Amino acid sequence: MSRPCIDLSLYLVLDPDLCGGFDGMVRTAEIAAQNGATVVQLRAPQWKKRELVECGRALKKVLDPLNVPLIVNDHADVCVAVDAAGLHVGQQDLSPDDARPLIGPDRVLGLSVSSMAELEAVDTSLVDHLGVGPIFDTATKKDAAAQLGMEGFARLAARKPCPIVAIGSVKAAMAEALFKAGTDGLAVVSAICGQKDPALSTRLLRKAIDANLACR
Amino acid sequence: MSRPCIDLSLYLVLDPDLCGGFDGMVRTAEIAAQNGATVVQLRAPQWKKRELVECGRALKKVLDPLNVPLIVNDHADVCVAVDAAGLHVGQQDLSPDDARPLIGPDRVLGLSVSSMAELEAVDTSLVDHLGVGPIFDTATKKDAAAQLGMEGFARLAARKPCPIVAIGSVKAAMAEALFKAGTDGLAVVSAICGQKDPALSTRLLRKAIDANLACR
Repeated sequence: MSRPCIDLSLYLVLDPDLCGGFDGMVRTAEIAAQNGATVVQLRAPQWKKRELVECGRALKKVLDPLNVPLIVNDHADVCVAVDAAGLHVGQQDLSPDDARPLIGPDRVLGLSVSSMAELEAVDTSLVDHLGVGPIFDTATKKDAAAQLGMEGFARLAARKPCPIVAIGSVKAAMAEALFKAGTDGLAVVSAICGQKDPALSTRLLRKAIDANLACR
Repeated sequence: MSRPCIDLSLYLVLDPDLCGGFDGMVRTAEIAAQNGATVVQLRAPQWKKRELVECGRALKKVLDPLNVPLIVNDHADVCVAVDAAGLHVGQQDLSPDDARPLIGPDRVLGLSVSSMAELEAVDTSLVDHLGVGPIFDTATKKDAAAQLGMEGFARLAARKPCPIVAIGSVKAAMAEALFKAGTDGLAVVSAICGQKDPALSTRLLRKAIDANLACR
């Protein structure tokens, strides 16, 4: 086995508050995966690890049959314990140098970057893809960096050393601009989590993404 | 190599607030290790992992020459990344079942227990020692269980399946009662961290412990 090729086109980052807790996260993930999300990230910085591991296993149970990979945020130990497909780290989390040996050669490693300096420092022998943002200010990540705006994102995307997803208040209506700027996918939280009809929200995102992928 | 034998007699749990941050934690650890602490735990639940890893490495640098082992709280990934001697988990952290394969067979694994039910559930094929407490209510751990009191501690200590340390507002004056009850060591936070003279505080604890160890 080697690192799986992950379709980043519609990357759902779960939020426990917006989803209504453990069960809501699993339900949201399943609905999203059934309706076009291609990868799901478990992110719950306020949770203890016992619950994270349980939730990771519950997510794998619904996602594996749909062939949608699970990525764990921040915690390499939880990632390995639940046998997730990958780990995602921010600039204050484990460094890629430290994370890669912990997760082994067969999992994907994603890294958040918010500036040209962070982008230029990326070692693609360790990191498989980047989350680039926040495009716009977001309520779902309290310690996020300053927003890049569409122009700032385009400047980073033009220099991407590996596949990237755009993150930070991303909505379906922004798909065209973001794909034109060079993104490989949209990462969303509140555009799916906590939506009245997450299946419909996912399908609308999927449609907007496919329209742009088809025209590349 | 197999699991190291760890002298639990004076077990310092670092607190970043009481120690005054990163540098204060390293300084406190070094002073304590020079004056009789036998094991040091890195615990900073409010920190991101980049800082935890850096601090773990800085702690190892001062503790290794003194032959005082470092134990990392909660994070198996940080524990392995900094090559600590062991991991300590609570009941809401990684389960011993999940933690043991992550840290491998050669590191010690400590577990917090607060009740007879938790004590009786301990699997000593996975867990090397226990932190039993809180003996008395403590300000340094916000999510601690109800205090055991000295009698409650003695009831648990009488049934210990492996070595234990007493934790929770432990002071030098309690050494006699705790060792008589069957503890193998005292775990302290505020009895060393943030003390005006941590070297003196450590030596007084050491003296109280040695007096009781000698009489067993």
